[in-house]
Amino acid sequence: MKKMVGFGDYMLRLNPEGYLRFLQADRFLVNYTGAEANVCVSLAMMGMDTDFVTRLPENDIAAAGVAQLRKFGVGTGHIAYGGERMGVFYVEKGASQRPSKVVYDRKYSSIAQCSYEDFDWEAIFAGASNFHMTGITPALSKTIPQVCIQACKKAKEMGLTISCDLNYRKNLWTEAEAKACMTQLMPYIDILVANEEDAEKVLGIKARDTDVTQGKLNREGYVDVAEQICQTYGTKMVAVTLRRSISASDNEWSAMLYTGGQPYFSRQYMVHLVDRVGGGDSFTAGLLYGVMNGYGPQETIEYAAAASCLKQTMEMDFNLSTADEVKRLVAGDGSGRVQR
Amino acid sequence: MKKMVGFGDYMLRLNPEGYLRFLQADRFLVNYTGAEANVCVSLAMMGMDTDFVTRLPENDIAAAGVAQLRKFGVGTGHIAYGGERMGVFYVEKGASQRPSKVVYDRKYSSIAQCSYEDFDWEAIFAGASNFHMTGITPALSKTIPQVCIQACKKAKEMGLTISCDLNYRKNLWTEAEAKACMTQLMPYIDILVANEEDAEKVLGIKARDTDVTQGKLNREGYVDVAEQICQTYGTKMVAVTLRRSISASDNEWSAMLYTGGQPYFSRQYMVHLVDRVGGGDSFTAGLLYGVMNGYGPQETIEYAAAASCLKQTMEMDFNLSTADEVKRLVAGDGSGRVQR
Amino acid sequence: MKKMVGFGDYMLRLNPEGYLRFLQADRFLVNYTGAEANVCVSLAMMGMDTDFVTRLPENDIAAAGVAQLRKFGVGTGHIAYGGERMGVFYVEKGASQRPSKVVYDRKYSSIAQCSYEDFDWEAIFAGASNFHMTGITPALSKTIPQVCIQACKKAKEMGLTISCDLNYRKNLWTEAEAKACMTQLMPYIDILVANEEDAEKVLGIKARDTDVTQGKLNREGYVDVAEQICQTYGTKMVAVTLRRSISASDNEWSAMLYTGGQPYFSRQYMVHLVDRVGGGDSFTAGLLYGVMNGYGPQETIEYAAAASCLKQTMEMDFNLSTADEVKRLVAGDGSGRVQR
Amino acid sequence: MKKMVGFGDYMLRLNPEGYLRFLQADRFLVNYTGAEANVCVSLAMMGMDTDFVTRLPENDIAAAGVAQLRKFGVGTGHIAYGGERMGVFYVEKGASQRPSKVVYDRKYSSIAQCSYEDFDWEAIFAGASNFHMTGITPALSKTIPQVCIQACKKAKEMGLTISCDLNYRKNLWTEAEAKACMTQLMPYIDILVANEEDAEKVLGIKARDTDVTQGKLNREGYVDVAEQICQTYGTKMVAVTLRRSISASDNEWSAMLYTGGQPYFSRQYMVHLVDRVGGGDSFTAGLLYGVMNGYGPQETIEYAAAASCLKQTMEMDFNLSTADEVKRLVAGDGSGRVQR
Amino acid sequence: MKKMVGFGDYMLRLNPEGYLRFLQADRFLVNYTGAEANVCVSLAMMGMDTDFVTRLPENDIAAAGVAQLRKFGVGTGHIAYGGERMGVFYVEKGASQRPSKVVYDRKYSSIAQCSYEDFDWEAIFAGASNFHMTGITPALSKTIPQVCIQACKKAKEMGLTISCDLNYRKNLWTEAEAKACMTQLMPYIDILVANEEDAEKVLGIKARDTDVTQGKLNREGYVDVAEQICQTYGTKMVAVTLRRSISASDNEWSAMLYTGGQPYFSRQYMVHLVDRVGGGDSFTAGLLYGVMNGYGPQETIEYAAAASCLKQTMEMDFNLSTADEVKRLVAGDGSGRVQR
Amino acid sequence: MKKMVGFGDYMLRLNPEGYLRFLQADRFLVNYTGAEANVCVSLAMMGMDTDFVTRLPENDIAAAGVAQLRKFGVGTGHIAYGGERMGVFYVEKGASQRPSKVVYDRKYSSIAQCSYEDFDWEAIFAGASNFHMTGITPALSKTIPQVCIQACKKAKEMGLTISCDLNYRKNLWTEAEAKACMTQLMPYIDILVANEEDAEKVLGIKARDTDVTQGKLNREGYVDVAEQICQTYGTKMVAVTLRRSISASDNEWSAMLYTGGQPYFSRQYMVHLVDRVGGGDSFTAGLLYGVMNGYGPQETIEYAAAASCLKQTMEMDFNLSTADEVKRLVAGDGSGRVQR
Repeated sequence: MKKMVGFGDYMLRLNPEGYLRFLQADRFLVNYTGAEANVCVSLAMMGMDTDFVTRLPENDIAAAGVAQLRKFGVGTGHIAYGGERMGVFYVEKGASQRPSKVVYDRKYSSIAQCSYEDFDWEAIFAGASNFHMTGITPALSKTIPQVCIQACKKAKEMGLTISCDLNYRKNLWTEAEAKACMTQLMPYIDILVANEEDAEKVLGIKARDTDVTQGKLNREGYVDVAEQICQTYGTKMVAVTLRRSISASDNEWSAMLYTGGQPYFSRQYMVHLVDRVGGGDSFTAGLLYGVMNGYGPQETIEYAAAASCLKQTMEMDFNLSTADEVKRLVAGDGSGRVQR
Repeated sequence: MKKMVGFGDYMLRLNPEGYLRFLQADRFLVNYTGAEANVCVSLAMMGMDTDFVTRLPENDIAAAGVAQLRKFGVGTGHIAYGGERMGVFYVEKGASQRPSKVVYDRKYSSIAQCSYEDFDWEAIFAGASNFHMTGITPALSKTIPQVCIQACKKAKEMGLTISCDLNYRKNLWTEAEAKACMTQLMPYIDILVANEEDAEKVLGIKARDTDVTQGKLNREGYVDVAEQICQTYGTKMVAVTLRRSISASDNEWSAMLYTGGQPYFSRQYMVHLVDRVGGGDSFTAGLLYGVMNGYGPQETIEYAAAASCLKQTMEMDFNLSTADEVKRLVAGDGSGRVQR
Repeated sequence: MKKMVGFGDYMLRLNPEGYLRFLQADRFLVNYTGAEANVCVSLAMMGMDTDFVTRLPENDIAAAGVAQLRKFGVGTGHIAYGGERMGVFYVEKGASQRPSKVVYDRKYSSIAQCSYEDFDWEAIFAGASNFHMTGITPALSKTIPQVCIQACKKAKEMGLTISCDLNYRKNLWTEAEAKACMTQLMPYIDILVANEEDAEKVLGIKARDTDVTQGKLNREGYVDVAEQICQTYGTKMVAVTLRRSISASDNEWSAMLYTGGQPYFSRQYMVHLVDRVGGGDSFTAGLLYGVMNGYGPQETIEYAAAASCLKQTMEMDFNLSTADEVKRLVAGDGSGRVQR
Repeated sequence: MKKMVGFGDYMLRLNPEGYLRFLQADRFLVNYTGAEANVCVSLAMMGMDTDFVTRLPENDIAAAGVAQLRKFGVGTGHIAYGGERMGVFYVEKGASQRPSKVVYDRKYSSIAQCSYEDFDWEAIFAGASNFHMTGITPALSKTIPQVCIQACKKAKEMGLTISCDLNYRKNLWTEAEAKACMTQLMPYIDILVANEEDAEKVLGIKARDTDVTQGKLNREGYVDVAEQICQTYGTKMVAVTLRRSISASDNEWSAMLYTGGQPYFSRQYMVHLVDRVGGGDSFTAGLLYGVMNGYGPQETIEYAAAASCLKQTMEMDFNLSTADEVKRLVAGDGSGRVQR
Repeated sequence: MKKMVGFGDYMLRLNPEGYLRFLQADRFLVNYTGAEANVCVSLAMMGMDTDFVTRLPENDIAAAGVAQLRKFGVGTGHIAYGGERMGVFYVEKGASQRPSKVVYDRKYSSIAQCSYEDFDWEAIFAGASNFHMTGITPALSKTIPQVCIQACKKAKEMGLTISCDLNYRKNLWTEAEAKACMTQLMPYIDILVANEEDAEKVLGIKARDTDVTQGKLNREGYVDVAEQICQTYGTKMVAVTLRRSISASDNEWSAMLYTGGQPYFSRQYMVHLVDRVGGGDSFTAGLLYGVMNGYGPQETIEYAAAASCLKQTMEMDFNLSTADEVKRLVAGDGSGRVQR
Repeated sequence: MKKMVGFGDYMLRLNPEGYLRFLQADRFLVNYTGAEANVCVSLAMMGMDTDFVTRLPENDIAAAGVAQLRKFGVGTGHIAYGGERMGVFYVEKGASQRPSKVVYDRKYSSIAQCSYEDFDWEAIFAGASNFHMTGITPALSKTIPQVCIQACKKAKEMGLTISCDLNYRKNLWTEAEAKACMTQLMPYIDILVANEEDAEKVLGIKARDTDVTQGKLNREGYVDVAEQICQTYGTKMVAVTLRRSISASDNEWSAMLYTGGQPYFSRQYMVHLVDRVGGGDSFTAGLLYGVMNGYGPQETIEYAAAASCLKQTMEMDFNLSTADEVKRLVAGDGSGRVQR
């Protein structure tokens, strides 16, 4: 069986219950999250073999986070221990016109301060078919981009397929820093997930006529961007999720996969959101599931869109859907009838 | 005053809080449920006299379940004690495209293993005007259908009006088993609640041109089925709820009553669901409330539809609406303004 | 900086968790509320200086309520202590067709039994620019109207701008009692918040062609009523919120400000409600924020509408929005995208 | 079977979770309580027939309170409805050196404002063998003592045994008021529960050499007081609980019954407290259980002491012990081994 | 590294929060438990390699149970799927004189209905050094004793050390049934955990002068019983825990290991109980930890006693102590000072 | 009135509910804490004027922490904003032999990175009588000791009394670092709180014959140490708490004040712990309360010991006792009888 390795940050996620604001919260729900970890958990829930690599401090909070990965079946044998802290990620869930708010406290984390030698990459990649990372990982510190580049180089040498979600985060690095790093990484990447904003800010590739905040989606713009990326970097697949925020409670959701010079659009879902955080990661997981299982492009993008639609009907960042549940939504009508 | 007797299973209902999945739940909300018990509670809340008959093991969990019936005013004096266990019913609430999931663990329950002699039917039916059962009760074991048939016979002898909700459950028995039993029961039944799927699978009566999973409702088909049932079995009233699942969060809801050769359709509600489980039972309770209070058919079906609409805006299986609350919805606009 | 003084009742608010009904609740969420206190908290959260004046018994429950005001930055130094009790306000949150229900237990409260001398009005109004009260305060007892009238007289003498939300509550006093009191108060009031029902019942000023329960809003009617009020009492500003209840879960929400002989209408929001209680108070706070900061009428009504829209996406009666958050909604698209 | 009727106040009890103080509580646990209601629930749990009589307002909070009585099997058919409010009782649980604190808000309750005619005493006492009241009931208002006296007179006429727990509450009435009322009631009372402080303050009967706050118990003093009461009022039984507070967490607990000129002391328990509120009521219930079932004095006092010991190991005011559980403690060793 | 395989039942454990009784619970805490699973989790937490073998139905509740084992690091790769249900185990926590109560609903479980062929024993035992079972497993049904005996035979053939906790449960089988089965199993068992009651009822080996319910412990009796067992069955080690229940809140706790003809007693702990369920299993885990790591008998029994002491200061059945934490208690003073 | 200024760290405190371990927690209780902030809150609850000075990042989590200080009446007007993060402090509550565990994540906090100029010390100390700090503050970073020393110098110049709790934390700095800094600070300190371990490690002053881990307390040793401190540094008062940990659940607690060449010992309490964290801070607050209110030494130490005894019977780090409650314990018997 194919096996995916994810590499990135892993944080404690704290959020007030229900729709309470931070100022009202007397207790926080405790979860653990990270873009690549979320992809691993999602794939593991679908029955795939996964291994998550990060660096964590030796304390009971980190231990609880690792236990949660194990719970959902993700391999944790190559996590490095050391450094000073685990990042914390606070989320306040929005509703209707009130946006969700997040407060990051992830600086100085053990992973941000890692070196290439903290990990036994040879052992990590042995037996793996896929390596996944997001643009968040190299943004964690000044020194980690080199770790990422070396890891991709190693993965490539060992024959792994490399996937990456650009995921530009303006509070972690500048556009210039992102561009400097990501353009070095792009040649290694086979499968890229990127929205228009990412593409423009990180790769300088611009879509025509799209204004995301106005909620209008420009299908041709997406195709155009994907095409440019493939041509510039030789990327094999470019995928993008198409979200239209009607409010913090209701979103339209679909996705596009560009491969072999052709765009493939998924069916569109009108999602009444339970928790939208992690939607993008579950999409990537769905995409990789399709790719790793040899699905065709249309089948792949439908699976990925359905998987990420389901994620957003669940609490917390992890998509806990099984492959069967995703396939049932792909095949079905999304009418949500009780399954007795 | 009229008095209704319900007979059937009574289970512990466990569900994660909010929209959590089973895999995420570290605590379950504790309730007790059963199709006929739900009808009893609903009628009791509306001020009617009810008595619920079942068989339960002698332990503290069953005792807590009985206490809950008492809390809502249902008579529990004829419950038989013995046998090995109380069934458990796990519910995971769906949202948007994610369907609710249920796990039943009701086999080998005390009620499934009951005999006719476990109950003092003479005393149970004394002073009662109505007897209610669903198609779930005879499905509980190989031996219980005879208990049901004998109980109906006895009820009929003692002059009670008998109502039944077909409620076919494919995980409890086969269509053939259901048909074998229910066609024996049908002659005793005065008031039948049945959807098209039930009618076809259990009675072999088929509606034309309806495909429930596509969400389209075929009004003529319902009338046709009801008419056939009345003609075949001499049933006095056939009622059906008309649900269109837009998603696990939003449903259209209305109902039809066929009696005296005429169909009566209720107003239609667009329900933003809080918990849809128990919707059918609350409909039956509303129907019986109308019948037991001498309402005309249109008034009855409006009351029943409003009652079951309200149920679905509440947590758990019980409809805790008073008759006043239901009448206010029937009379009002459903705009949900605060009642100060 | 300008400073607002609020005067009124302050109650313990108890409500079941989520959508549970009173009958199902084994715990109540604990909050504290009062129409004028809500306005103070909202303004304090927006960075304004506020002071809340009430009368409370000397016990630990009242102390906890005062601590909550302090938490949100409201001045509590002029609260009088004495009397027998603090009112209690029970709220059961509705959903879809099921209306929210409230049970008031506010009679015999310390504030209802206060006298003018219980408070040091000279000190209270020193340094303040605005005095705010609602029609609920004089409705609390037979004796308190005189306290209110004297307080307004004093505030006027000391040069404060006086605002009032008519807020007619039929369970507190009759229309005749309300009219007798409020027509005496009207000459002192500079800024009035009043809906059509209030205006008709309390001031006898009637709008043409409006039937609120049918959910239709009559814009001209509102303008007409506001105009009549300004002409009759010399009121400088009349504002009104325009709510159309689609259901207990979804409401259309906008507002109108009439000043200088002109009506100004805000943008309209389709709100998926989290908790609508306190919506009117947050509107008043938004209105006062605009007025106290010298906003023009259109800017003021947009701010007030946005503020109260946001309130309804939060749990409990307080609007915990900062001025920045409100301005972002005024400026933005209400699409509720995550704020990273 | 014998049947007990209780008459008294019934309040909403609110308390923070665990050991949180009022100031820390963001939610209150919801229960309902009242000295006589507690006795009824306890007896009902032990399988006895009981009926609780009070007066409550017609609102959803009172309805929830009544449902709770029904849940535990207490008859609620003679509760009168009307008046303005239900009392509220706030409890903060102490620990170690920190005492529990209670805040009462029970004034102006529906029961306090009742009249003798609000109840159908003839029907209430028909078929009953015992009538129970505490000294709290006549303390609720200036007018209710007459209702209590008339009710006792009626009960006596109809042949019921009357029991009373003196339960002097200094925050409800003065010693003079208590004495004026209770000395009129004493001649009707067959079974009296009274501690030394009660006896002295209410009846003017003083025990020698006891100082409760020093934690020393004076066995002879209790016997002496009981003897005096029996001689003065012809009381048949006088019982008293003997609590030594070591801390808010640990108490020594035993009891004495004086009857037929003889004192009977129970075994002594060292109780690690879960919730001590309601301990006295559960003792009275145990006492009445013994009396109503024809137990001898030693057996009665052992049962009563064990019952009230168990109550204090449970949360909330109700003793939810079955008679079997109490008997097992009487017979056993109190070592608390798991019951499999 | 050595590896332990456990085989037995695995149930859903449900218990009310804190000290609430079943009748008061509106939510149950959700955990999963089983005597052998508890031993596996405890050993895994201490860093040992473990694998737990059972049979579970294919549903989401069982899946959640398996995820919990994975969370704590227990191997779940040899669990068989099939059958009808997972057992349920309800626990109500006692306090002071009130004993804990348990309600078992474990009949007809998938594991009870298993056959030897459901498991690939060759693969299960490959690479394992220890096999552990308790007397509960063969008690689950009439057919499972043969599975147990065959499994032990196989384990013996493959050179594993076999350990067993007699754990006689009178509600699962009779003494005669237990004796019939266990005497067949005894010859395979190298390490036996058994208290006096077990030894007498299951093996017919009686200790002199001990009456557990009186709370007196008879050290010589234990030695005598252990000696007899070793002589009769050639058992290498017999261990027993010595619990003296002072109340449901406080217990004295120590242990004895008999091996090589000598008894070794551990230090004694006075435990203020948090949750005593699972205490015996954590003792066995501690014992096996010592044995598997080559500890001497005194060191082993101290470790086992300390481990199980710590378990009883934690909620739920699992001992979540690390080996370091246990060793710190063995070395230290048990004074519970904060570890900063 | 006198006014106390505290200066130090302020962290988010997260802890699992009840006795759950980190590994079991799915939610954390949210509080805010810091040694000096705890002293401020405690004094504010007792009615004293306090102001807390720290430096916090500008985000919603810090804002919630500040709101909590305001809630309890502490002045927050001089808090500086800037820097990167607020520290996090995880606490797992121990029980019986299981010690509490804490995980600190306080490095790189805004306060650790502050400079003297971040604060307007002139304004801060204006009108204040007391300045309080602990040995934790200078331990937060390499640069903050200078800020502390300058602040003390400034406070001294402005005539404030300075108090300090040595509070040596080995995970923050080495003994050498502590000594280097604290010996510079000592000359400014009027009132010192220090246990033997602190005195030895930080000041190099050693007590004879004390071994804290053996739980024996050496009264003469304490006197000796205090005397040496006063002689060496001219300190006016040295106070120490005397804790004997019997277990994580039960502690003996008393205190000693050395002043004017004389030791004063308080009464001793046997505390059944609810939460011991913050015990020392509440002692300091009690001490300062006595000093600021002109109490004599015996009265002061009794008040301080009682205050800190009460703190340990409450959840979380803050002592929420009023001065009345403390005085009642000083005067009373600690028997924890209900306060009605």
